[in-house]
Amino acid sequence: MMEKRTQYCGLITEEYIGQEVVVKGWVNRRRDLGGLIFVHLRDREGIVQIVFNQEKNPELFELAENLRHEYVIEAKGMVVKREANQINPNIKTGTVEIEVSQAAILAKSKTPPFTIGDDQAVADELRMKYRYLDLRKEKMVQNLKLRHQTTRAIRNFLDETDFMDVETPYLTKSTPEGARDYVVPSRVYPGTFYALPQSPQLFKQLLMGAGIDRYYQIVRCFRDEDLRGDRQPEFTQVDLETSFMSAEEIQSLTEAMMKRVVKETLNRDIKTPFLRMTYDEAMNRYGSDKPDTRFGLELIDLQAFAEETDFNVFKQALANGGQVKGLNLKGKAADFSRKDMDGLTDYIKKYGAKGLAWVKVTEDGLNGSVAKFFANDKEKLVQAMDAEPGDLLMFVADKKEVVAQSLGELRLKFGRDFNLIDQNQLNFLWVVDWPLLEYDEDLKRHVALHHPFTRPKEEDIALMTEDPSKVRAQAYDIVLNGYEIGGGSLRINTRDVQEKMFDALGFSPEEAKEQFGFLLDAFDYGFPPHGGLALGLDRLVMILAGEDNIREVIAFPKNGKAYDPMTKAPSEVSDQQLQELNLRLTVED
Amino acid sequence: MMEKRTQYCGLITEEYIGQEVVVKGWVNRRRDLGGLIFVHLRDREGIVQIVFNQEKNPELFELAENLRHEYVIEAKGMVVKREANQINPNIKTGTVEIEVSQAAILAKSKTPPFTIGDDQAVADELRMKYRYLDLRKEKMVQNLKLRHQTTRAIRNFLDETDFMDVETPYLTKSTPEGARDYVVPSRVYPGTFYALPQSPQLFKQLLMGAGIDRYYQIVRCFRDEDLRGDRQPEFTQVDLETSFMSAEEIQSLTEAMMKRVVKETLNRDIKTPFLRMTYDEAMNRYGSDKPDTRFGLELIDLQAFAEETDFNVFKQALANGGQVKGLNLKGKAADFSRKDMDGLTDYIKKYGAKGLAWVKVTEDGLNGSVAKFFANDKEKLVQAMDAEPGDLLMFVADKKEVVAQSLGELRLKFGRDFNLIDQNQLNFLWVVDWPLLEYDEDLKRHVALHHPFTRPKEEDIALMTEDPSKVRAQAYDIVLNGYEIGGGSLRINTRDVQEKMFDALGFSPEEAKEQFGFLLDAFDYGFPPHGGLALGLDRLVMILAGEDNIREVIAFPKNGKAYDPMTKAPSEVSDQQLQELNLRLTVED
Repeated sequence: MMEKRTQYCGLITEEYIGQEVVVKGWVNRRRDLGGLIFVHLRDREGIVQIVFNQEKNPELFELAENLRHEYVIEAKGMVVKREANQINPNIKTGTVEIEVSQAAILAKSKTPPFTIGDDQAVADELRMKYRYLDLRKEKMVQNLKLRHQTTRAIRNFLDETDFMDVETPYLTKSTPEGARDYVVPSRVYPGTFYALPQSPQLFKQLLMGAGIDRYYQIVRCFRDEDLRGDRQPEFTQVDLETSFMSAEEIQSLTEAMMKRVVKETLNRDIKTPFLRMTYDEAMNRYGSDKPDTRFGLELIDLQAFAEETDFNVFKQALANGGQVKGLNLKGKAADFSRKDMDGLTDYIKKYGAKGLAWVKVTEDGLNGSVAKFFANDKEKLVQAMDAEPGDLLMFVADKKEVVAQSLGELRLKFGRDFNLIDQNQLNFLWVVDWPLLEYDEDLKRHVALHHPFTRPKEEDIALMTEDPSKVRAQAYDIVLNGYEIGGGSLRINTRDVQEKMFDALGFSPEEAKEQFGFLLDAFDYGFPPHGGLALGLDRLVMILAGEDNIREVIAFPKNGKAYDPMTKAPSEVSDQQLQELNLRLTVED
Repeated sequence: MMEKRTQYCGLITEEYIGQEVVVKGWVNRRRDLGGLIFVHLRDREGIVQIVFNQEKNPELFELAENLRHEYVIEAKGMVVKREANQINPNIKTGTVEIEVSQAAILAKSKTPPFTIGDDQAVADELRMKYRYLDLRKEKMVQNLKLRHQTTRAIRNFLDETDFMDVETPYLTKSTPEGARDYVVPSRVYPGTFYALPQSPQLFKQLLMGAGIDRYYQIVRCFRDEDLRGDRQPEFTQVDLETSFMSAEEIQSLTEAMMKRVVKETLNRDIKTPFLRMTYDEAMNRYGSDKPDTRFGLELIDLQAFAEETDFNVFKQALANGGQVKGLNLKGKAADFSRKDMDGLTDYIKKYGAKGLAWVKVTEDGLNGSVAKFFANDKEKLVQAMDAEPGDLLMFVADKKEVVAQSLGELRLKFGRDFNLIDQNQLNFLWVVDWPLLEYDEDLKRHVALHHPFTRPKEEDIALMTEDPSKVRAQAYDIVLNGYEIGGGSLRINTRDVQEKMFDALGFSPEEAKEQFGFLLDAFDYGFPPHGGLALGLDRLVMILAGEDNIREVIAFPKNGKAYDPMTKAPSEVSDQQLQELNLRLTVED
């Protein structure tokens, strides 16, 4: 190499005119124009044009003639203003160029499997196999920068508000509640395993017991679950815990942090405090515990109507303890054929609904699959649904959960399909007053909606033994644009309530002691009231970046099957390794 | 709880006099003085005295009488100046106290297994089992704070110098070179495993291939090795990588970072540039590749003397290609009995030495185990060793490595035993010009002294096939007070040199491709020259904290056997988990 770089390619703007600079970067494009070669040289900050002149420097011109896409070169030269007709408004440096006086090739490149400089879609697996090339694309560099800016803003905010960054272990204890653990066999203790943390929950609580008082960590977490579009086997959590603060104080601290993040990343101001909505209201109005409130199209409760109508399906649903609700897709009746409606029916069947009843409102009355049943109640229905001619009315009569989920998902589908969503909005809200427990039909016991360390409302503690499903938690989720980006709660800090909780979850006292004895013991030694929050960093950055998959904001993600096509992980290990770990495979290599 | 805390206990200083404050903390001590109860209330920032007055508030006084060590309470009251004779100079808040007007117990405590407020030594296992109590001790809080300050200083420095914080995966590919991997069985791909990273080495290099140009990460790394005092199964690394920079540029950047760290943590200025010493010089003068240069007592080369002396042991060592070196422990001859000298001999035998020859210099000549052999060379020896009466001279004649290690360790022992070390110094230095490879007698092949991605000096590349041991690396270690706190190098960035390296390490081309094919492929697509560094954060903070075990600066460490006495990790997992992972134990539960 010849000399130190004086500036990134992408930052050589007019202020450098008349200066000699040294740049280093990748050949993004080469154009030959009779005696002149123009190269777009690219680095992580952008592109600058460098010019080789055959007449002025024939030897250097020869080098330039050999340049190919993705060669790495360094070049020295004078920055000059471009002629007016040569200005390129598409790049930040478009009014200048560098007249190269010295240059060297630092690394050559074969023809890459896809071109970095253009916008053509590349297949996911190819992108992942050549991730080091994929990350050269401007969008990906911007996404990684945004991620760094986000964590920096968070750290700065938390450092300034007395939070201490404390690292907790990655080799921890396997716990039976929650998702499936990734485990790590121990060589020293045959037959035993560490678990990778699903979250540092217990350690951060113990730090409160230790008096650390305000803790944070940006930390990797692991869940061996079946993967979805926005899930990865490992993900990053912004993890907070505080002592002596109320739920409201933790929420407003989080709001201030999010304000800072949005300001320092997107340079936008968001309004605080965020809207607060109870879990019940969210489920009733949006059919979701993470409602996207950027658009209306709310679920309409038809209980009163259903009680009076002749339509037996409605009546029956109520009689079975279920619900009847509807959606009014205003003015869109004409957009849907009978076949389209069958499609919608299939769509909501995925969410457990037995069917979708619908009618179109016309000037002449109702028509559609169930119109005849409302012959006597037409006006009542129109009133209940706030309907007018041209509207498409849809109904689900089913168990409460099924009504909520199927109409909630249908609502989101319409939101997307009819562009009802203002993509420019950042719509934060808190969902509060969660149930503490819900009954799991498969497990035949209650499970925690958040986790087993969530504190019930004081007035509901008695209900923990009497009617666990009725207990409300001091828990809160933070929702952004219909994504749950984080959740938190006040935590149990006394042995008796924690033991009640384990009991409600079906643990025997022995199991509770075996798994969580250290926490119960810790409660005996002056454990302060405490609570906290965990934010999903990947999802937050994904939304800020305007992406719809967290893979786009993770440098080296796994694919949808927890596999890395680049390094080919996971892979086989040697027999010696297995032997040292006292393990045998139950499958053939 | 009653009200928001207005300030930490430890920060209620004279500026609060006349103000009503709310504090929350732990009862560190209680003193009853006829109608008055004085409580030292403690939080992470320190202690403040709060006073309960029976006459003024009998009900509150009753509460105070019930307070025990480690109860958590909140208290509200007026801050007043203490009488002159009541001032406590041992605490920052010692000139004030709070007259309590309102108080509540937030959590009770049983008698803890050890007292937080005193300095008594507590057994390690007990400290670890009750780590949440151990961390309440002021020293431990200070250590965690120091750790946070250190990472914050590092992050601030790197953020300001254009480094991007990029997260790399924890579930990665197992690699055969280096230490033993911790592995994580995959449920999705039976019989395969992820490996936890020993360092993000390959990912950070790929980020350079991606054009990220300046990368950093403060990242957990894992090594399943037999543990020592300053090793843990997981440890934290400050990981850097840059493109287009020379080794010297990377070193001076690191120096500026360390300057910032020491300033922001200890408020001390350190001098840069650091001393640079070649590997050969470090081994020759200090018998160590991480010399503690805070004191002298250097190894003295006696080759010239040994060639001429009658002492056959010396001559023989040289004839076998070995070395003869000595230490002169000035003025300490009288401190050592014959038995003491036997003890020193045993000490160095641990490092492979066959024996320790020694003489004492007296006014009357030499005496001691080998004095008679030097009868004719007495003056030459005294001169070679720069000796005078009262000095203790020791010699080792052996293979080069044995001479270096045994005398190097002996030197360090004397340094400690005779307090030759100025504990207040922060002695940074670079050890440069490392060998690239060394021959491993057990493996019967060469191994990399740093790692297989280290770039050889350009002029030595030809030697890689001819005489691998002679090749020097473009590698540098940073040493602080005799600890290696980090190491780095320029990296190989071309396929041909990397293939030469794998070949020198005994990989077949097929093995190299299987394990590192993605890196070799990446070199084909414009891979820039690059290099970096990794610092051991735990060790660095340990030294800054004046501790001698990294466990003191890790919130939740494992014990010397990779076990956590608090959570009891590692532990057994269920048969179902094993089944899902297609594993069977080869030991009985």
